[in-house]
Amino acid sequence: MEQHSRTDAYADRYAARAAGMVPSEIRALFAMVARPEVVSLAGGAPYVSALPLDAVGRMVGELVAGKGAEALQYGSAQGDEQLREHICEVMSLEGVQASAEDVVVTVGAQQALDLITKIFVDPGDVVLAEAPSYVGALGTFAAYQADVVHVPLDEGGLVPSALRETLARLRAQGRRVKFLYTVPTFQNPAGVTLTTARRAQILEICAEYDVLVIEDNPYGLLGFDGEPMRALRADDAERVIYLGSFSKTIASGLRVGWVLAPHAVRAKLVLAAESAILCPSNFSQLAVREYLATQPWREQIKDFRELYRTRRDALLESLDQLMPDGCTWTRPAGGFFVWLTLPEGLDAKAMAPRAIAERVAYVPGTGFYADGTGHRHMRLSYCFPEPHRIREGVRRLAGVVEQEIRLRDTFGSTTGGSSTGVQTPGPGIV
Amino acid sequence: MEQHSRTDAYADRYAARAAGMVPSEIRALFAMVARPEVVSLAGGAPYVSALPLDAVGRMVGELVAGKGAEALQYGSAQGDEQLREHICEVMSLEGVQASAEDVVVTVGAQQALDLITKIFVDPGDVVLAEAPSYVGALGTFAAYQADVVHVPLDEGGLVPSALRETLARLRAQGRRVKFLYTVPTFQNPAGVTLTTARRAQILEICAEYDVLVIEDNPYGLLGFDGEPMRALRADDAERVIYLGSFSKTIASGLRVGWVLAPHAVRAKLVLAAESAILCPSNFSQLAVREYLATQPWREQIKDFRELYRTRRDALLESLDQLMPDGCTWTRPAGGFFVWLTLPEGLDAKAMAPRAIAERVAYVPGTGFYADGTGHRHMRLSYCFPEPHRIREGVRRLAGVVEQEIRLRDTFGSTTGGSSTGVQTPGPGIV
Repeated sequence: MEQHSRTDAYADRYAARAAGMVPSEIRALFAMVARPEVVSLAGGAPYVSALPLDAVGRMVGELVAGKGAEALQYGSAQGDEQLREHICEVMSLEGVQASAEDVVVTVGAQQALDLITKIFVDPGDVVLAEAPSYVGALGTFAAYQADVVHVPLDEGGLVPSALRETLARLRAQGRRVKFLYTVPTFQNPAGVTLTTARRAQILEICAEYDVLVIEDNPYGLLGFDGEPMRALRADDAERVIYLGSFSKTIASGLRVGWVLAPHAVRAKLVLAAESAILCPSNFSQLAVREYLATQPWREQIKDFRELYRTRRDALLESLDQLMPDGCTWTRPAGGFFVWLTLPEGLDAKAMAPRAIAERVAYVPGTGFYADGTGHRHMRLSYCFPEPHRIREGVRRLAGVVEQEIRLRDTFGSTTGGSSTGVQTPGPGIV
Repeated sequence: MEQHSRTDAYADRYAARAAGMVPSEIRALFAMVARPEVVSLAGGAPYVSALPLDAVGRMVGELVAGKGAEALQYGSAQGDEQLREHICEVMSLEGVQASAEDVVVTVGAQQALDLITKIFVDPGDVVLAEAPSYVGALGTFAAYQADVVHVPLDEGGLVPSALRETLARLRAQGRRVKFLYTVPTFQNPAGVTLTTARRAQILEICAEYDVLVIEDNPYGLLGFDGEPMRALRADDAERVIYLGSFSKTIASGLRVGWVLAPHAVRAKLVLAAESAILCPSNFSQLAVREYLATQPWREQIKDFRELYRTRRDALLESLDQLMPDGCTWTRPAGGFFVWLTLPEGLDAKAMAPRAIAERVAYVPGTGFYADGTGHRHMRLSYCFPEPHRIREGVRRLAGVVEQEIRLRDTFGSTTGGSSTGVQTPGPGIV
């Protein structure tokens, strides 16, 4: 940041909030990840090539030829009404009863996060987030000068007792807590899922402390076992603001997400959306609407589930076989991510350039904490590479970690310096 | 706003900036405009049905079938590189020399406005804007708690002497002016164009006072006479941030716009874009890219120009023939809008419900001022209705104005109460 300021002739003109927008140190590194010889376990990009592209192409072509006057025109800031009805149908799979009237279509769920933060957060307000938490959310909170306070999670998701302690402490300090941000199901980056018992407890605690809950749920329909989990929103329509996305169940390049909010909040969100983008793209929205109305979308999601399950299995089996002692990792039941913890004294951020030199990439854990911690962790994603590439990637990674362990045993530690603040790593790693 | 607060259980949780997000009083009225019997001279929607929808449909279908893995996937936050190169080619028609490296693709130019305001404006900072100014920009400035100070325009665009006086006054007051926002060519809502001589003067004054210029230019290629005007950005690459859009030259429903900024500012804008939406839609971007690469876009813009010229002529001829004495209006040489001033004592806002009852709609001038003035003005747009409908609309409008004049002559005035602050009227009126 200092270096940046020295060379930026506009530096003294920026708003105070711009200081929270800092490029990631690992960004340059990620430019290398695009090289085909590197196995990237870094990105969170869905495997859109699994879609029936010919059928979708035909559908989109007919949409423009037949309904172009609508698909190519401005729409409402709230989003297409028929699409919002389909969205309610999708959410009902997770037990959510909602009216299309309370849904706002957004440019991916990321924009929903941005709008929510914009209408709720004054500089210095506290936002609670899991430790670790979704890097894109941390970037948004930083852009509005929120003070992110992390609450630990474990294999069962966010830890209720830790949430209660944190809220009690913040109340004693007189801090203003605006909301709890959580990815309860197949969490990004940790791959864990909040248990059913804990869901009730989390809602109870948030009611007790009168804190809103932002439930971010892009992966909810991508579970590998049984029925979808019941959403938090299904059990509290007044306290929970629900974020959904078609990025992982249809296609990320359409940038169609949504937010379901209590009626009064929804009205504010529409005004905020209008001043931010006027309205979401009808072209994208109507493509999703037609897809949901005419294509076998439930079967396609099943196909995605099987595809990602195979890849998760490839990743977990390779980790079991190849990773050196002292490494631990989560075992996701859905979604895209495994969270790996290195042996004591190792530093995933310092190790990243060496891993890329060995042609394997991951996201160092530091990106998922607002407080500069997370050095011993990394996120491994299995969504994009084919299974044989995943196995090859883990083989390379295991070699790098073994070398780090030898280095540590010789020099005591491989730990680099600590980071400061949130660093946006680019959409490549979502 | 008061009524809203009383019924909103979340009112005490919002950020301070949310107070600047106020629904328009005329919003309900605009719900009526969609009725087919109403001639709407209110909307700023382009006439996208003039596009060759079959050809565009085929192009889009082939894009998804052939390049779906790219078109349906996440892209970079800055936007597709080839598209940015095409954008530089488009801007060169207005004398702008730029590198694709300094372009950021946005969700319409509206998002560019939002990101610029986000990185530059602290609450209370001054933003200069023409009087009248684009309603969507005023909404964005309000959402970031900017203090908008208007500078008058006349038939030749923004008045340089008034700009200088305003800047001198603000400097004497010790105010922090962040930028001048201007739509120099075929202005929205006034329909006037900044003369060539004034362009140089405006740049000179802004250099003298060290103020950035935001040049918003969605209509630049839609002039009815001769070659496109030279953009302000063509003569100052360091002080001018240029906003462009394909909403009026291709299709508004794609939501593809852009911002061209000095290098350091561009870097901040990319970070701001990332935290707002991750990345713009590849689906939309690649549709525009393919359109520019494979379709006769220059000829299509010519067709749009002829179409809008015919409609402008229909509007101006009807106004000349039918409007009562005491009304005056601008004579645009391009773009979408005519700005009409009513005789003294008439109030376009108070008159609007009566006009809609007579099946004609316009946008009252008050929406285009941040200070609650503008009651005697209205914006008439000729972009969407067919010429015979425009003529019928003006006939109805003239009847309403005549009636208002009779009312005024009986009761002294038809003026309603004054508005307070900016009111977002919805994307329907752009």
